Amino acid sequence: MGDQIGNPTRRDFLTMVGAVGGAALMYQTMGMMGLAQASPYAGPIKLGTAPANKKVLVLGAGIAGMVAAMELRDAGYEVEVIEFRDVAGGRCWTIRAGDTYEELGGAVQKVDFAEGNYFNPGPWRVPYNHYGIIDYCRRLGVELEPLIQINNFAYVHSKDALDGKPVRYREINSDFRGHISDLLSKVTNQGALDEVLSDEDKENLLAGLRTFGALNADNEYVSGNTASARRGYERAPGGGVDGAPIANEIMDLSTLLSSGLWSRLATSEALNSSMPIFQPKGGMDMIARAMAENLGDLVKYRKRVTQIRQDDDGVTVVYEDMDQGDAEVTTTADYCVCTIPFSILGQIDHDFSSSLSNVISTMSYNASIKVGVEFKRRFWEEDEHIYGGTTYTDLPISQISYPSNDYLSDKPGVLLGCYSWGATAYQFSSMTPEERISRTVEFGSQIHPQMKEEFKAGVAVAWHRVPWTLGCYGAWQDKEAQYQDGVAMDRRIVCAGEHLSYLPAWMEGALLSSLDAITRLHEVASNAAGK
Amino acid sequence: MGDQIGNPTRRDFLTMVGAVGGAALMYQTMGMMGLAQASPYAGPIKLGTAPANKKVLVLGAGIAGMVAAMELRDAGYEVEVIEFRDVAGGRCWTIRAGDTYEELGGAVQKVDFAEGNYFNPGPWRVPYNHYGIIDYCRRLGVELEPLIQINNFAYVHSKDALDGKPVRYREINSDFRGHISDLLSKVTNQGALDEVLSDEDKENLLAGLRTFGALNADNEYVSGNTASARRGYERAPGGGVDGAPIANEIMDLSTLLSSGLWSRLATSEALNSSMPIFQPKGGMDMIARAMAENLGDLVKYRKRVTQIRQDDDGVTVVYEDMDQGDAEVTTTADYCVCTIPFSILGQIDHDFSSSLSNVISTMSYNASIKVGVEFKRRFWEEDEHIYGGTTYTDLPISQISYPSNDYLSDKPGVLLGCYSWGATAYQFSSMTPEERISRTVEFGSQIHPQMKEEFKAGVAVAWHRVPWTLGCYGAWQDKEAQYQDGVAMDRRIVCAGEHLSYLPAWMEGALLSSLDAITRLHEVASNAAGK
Repeated sequence: MGDQIGNPTRRDFLTMVGAVGGAALMYQTMGMMGLAQASPYAGPIKLGTAPANKKVLVLGAGIAGMVAAMELRDAGYEVEVIEFRDVAGGRCWTIRAGDTYEELGGAVQKVDFAEGNYFNPGPWRVPYNHYGIIDYCRRLGVELEPLIQINNFAYVHSKDALDGKPVRYREINSDFRGHISDLLSKVTNQGALDEVLSDEDKENLLAGLRTFGALNADNEYVSGNTASARRGYERAPGGGVDGAPIANEIMDLSTLLSSGLWSRLATSEALNSSMPIFQPKGGMDMIARAMAENLGDLVKYRKRVTQIRQDDDGVTVVYEDMDQGDAEVTTTADYCVCTIPFSILGQIDHDFSSSLSNVISTMSYNASIKVGVEFKRRFWEEDEHIYGGTTYTDLPISQISYPSNDYLSDKPGVLLGCYSWGATAYQFSSMTPEERISRTVEFGSQIHPQMKEEFKAGVAVAWHRVPWTLGCYGAWQDKEAQYQDGVAMDRRIVCAGEHLSYLPAWMEGALLSSLDAITRLHEVASNAAGK
Repeated sequence: MGDQIGNPTRRDFLTMVGAVGGAALMYQTMGMMGLAQASPYAGPIKLGTAPANKKVLVLGAGIAGMVAAMELRDAGYEVEVIEFRDVAGGRCWTIRAGDTYEELGGAVQKVDFAEGNYFNPGPWRVPYNHYGIIDYCRRLGVELEPLIQINNFAYVHSKDALDGKPVRYREINSDFRGHISDLLSKVTNQGALDEVLSDEDKENLLAGLRTFGALNADNEYVSGNTASARRGYERAPGGGVDGAPIANEIMDLSTLLSSGLWSRLATSEALNSSMPIFQPKGGMDMIARAMAENLGDLVKYRKRVTQIRQDDDGVTVVYEDMDQGDAEVTTTADYCVCTIPFSILGQIDHDFSSSLSNVISTMSYNASIKVGVEFKRRFWEEDEHIYGGTTYTDLPISQISYPSNDYLSDKPGVLLGCYSWGATAYQFSSMTPEERISRTVEFGSQIHPQMKEEFKAGVAVAWHRVPWTLGCYGAWQDKEAQYQDGVAMDRRIVCAGEHLSYLPAWMEGALLSSLDAITRLHEVASNAAGK
């Protein structure tokens, strides 16, 4: 982001290093400059100037397509975007009160949320390390607000552990940290690590474990105020006569280990799930709306692509215009960026090279189910003091995520009641939307009994039934072997999207794929024009 | 919170249990109902009805005083609040662009922030487990927004470790978790824990450590994509041709241990610092303003209390009215809630019992320094991708906290550039405000070199020089021995505030102290009236 804001030389320098020494040297240099560990997004792209009178056709107005269209237009290309739906965004999608959604198979859901409430069935999070999306939000004026991913007071739950009783995240987290720090302290003091650690190392390790695990002065994890200051008290510190705290009891190691609930403790550490994480205010599609507004009438909506052809002179695309009784229209361009998901593209008549065709036909799209449920009141806040964050469970709903907006509101609230993958997602996909919602409430009430009483409305999106993607994200048959075939420019056409990235299912993957694709397209177009 | 919103029987039941079996049984019952681990705040207080024609004088319009005044008024008492300053809030204080602040000693700071920017020199955080403050925010319509306490991409820094180079929090966090998990796995496999763990325990422990520490399939913490998915990459996963990630190198155990930087990893686990944490939108004093507005003209500003007396008939307070040329005024009441900090109260002519007088005269007030610094641009976001959160350092500034609002703004931003206690705070207190600010920028630039170039304005609050508290929070000479003397009602007067709680320096402590104090005052008043 440095090139726009006060540090123009840094990027220029890196670009020069990259040009001279290649990407590896550039990243090595970035590392020395403390800039690595970054998204490969290094600030607004500088394509340079388009060759004269060249047109690029962009297929699909999702994140990848719109990013390509904006940047190619800004470089001077003529741009035309062909979109199947009547709105932009693709999977960057927000369902709002009053919306109607018809899935594959014909089931129609009319969303009966309270005014202003919404649900993001696709992407719902913008991690801090997704620099590209964050920078486009900045450039397009999309406001971001924090999304609470991990809430120490939300639950971890297993139907088979602790009699199915949900436990506050902070208890399991404190107890696991405490017990392993206690065990490692003991064996360190017993000399078990003498061969690998110096005396100074051991001293530092013991001090570190004491802090890390909330151990007492003897490096033991025991019930008491030291542990309770992490895991919670029987009676928390207060004021006045009864102000003194009463500690609670830690969970014994064996019970903790056999509960399996420790498996939830790593989520907050993964780069894409660690704080801070953001969401656009008002719904994820605020990003798509801002991009669509920026593109204006360059985007042609309600056009169903039926044929893609290319030859030495250009690219020819045939589409059915749904606004003209499905009349067949032919459009041409010099180049094309194709962001249509391969699940759809495989069904379209095309003449791609055999290597790309092979990737398209062998890529499968993963199943995923997301259910948004609205309740009459925010009982998770009012009764249980849970403000945002996620409850993890091994029930088929997998997780419950509480809204990270409108805290303390006395209006109905929408939570993510089910977010599952794999076999569970297939099961949910085979149900009617109403069944999916009622199952979500049924399972969820094992954790929040209030759910049954407080249910108001729901919407269930099974991604295999979403007409414009037929799945959640692209899964490679053999990524290592096929990847370069998939991303390579195929004569005049280059494909882009989350499926052509190492950040599948993330908007950042779509965006980075798109920037890389148009960089190469521009190179090809410039070279061709230079001849 | 249940009694106002749809669950009227739960609190009634607990009240009954408390009345019959005492507090211990009540908390035990709450524990069984899954309600414990709570703040002692159990929902809006129900004082009942005040005896007829009784007046309570409240000294001080901070959080404790205003909570007491609102609740006593609602119960039917006549209430008069005497406040020294010309605004309410006490330490719940926000300094805004254009404000002027004169500290003890006469130094005046005119705050030259950009329009709309502010700084909270006192409390700045509302943890999720401070139920009382959160509930008053709800009842008074104060909007809360998340404050990012821990940011995985902020820095940990020691001037003596790693050549003084700041390291991203996530690297130290991942490496410490990884290395201790690796060590404990090794000794477990070597049989060192055979006497304390069953075979099943060991299997679960190894699986748990693998997840917890990002270990490989052999339970080792090594450089590679598994570790990099936590600590960051040399080249992060991207899209297109160069999309595949390149892992970075983990820090070796000995270097990590000797750096001492692991000492920062526990902060996010402490109950009052673990996510989620909130801040009122627009500044902490939005809470004070809402309370003051609720109280209206019950609060008398600019009155300096000089004498407090009580006898069998009531309480008599003398104050100087700064709006009337310091004219001496006498006011009387049946009872009094005194929330004046003991640092000030000790200088006022009073006739408290010897036990309370002893507490007042022996309580010291801790030193603290906070410096808010405004920079021309949000370089921590633009250059370093740090959105909110805290950098920890062993420099005298202790920490740098980045603003959790106005993300991505291109306007000047204010960060907390120094927040220190103890000896450092004394040193800073002895400097002029200008020196404190320039030292803050000087130290901070060891972590953010941009600080010198981008500095715009600052404000420095040394709490020992704040005229209305003369310190940050009350520290007991011997809390265990003296506590009940301090909180006990002294005939017609009861004291309240953060100093009379086990949550010192927190607004929640002040609030809980106040609710407990007025509960007992009301009991005394009701019994006296019943006679």
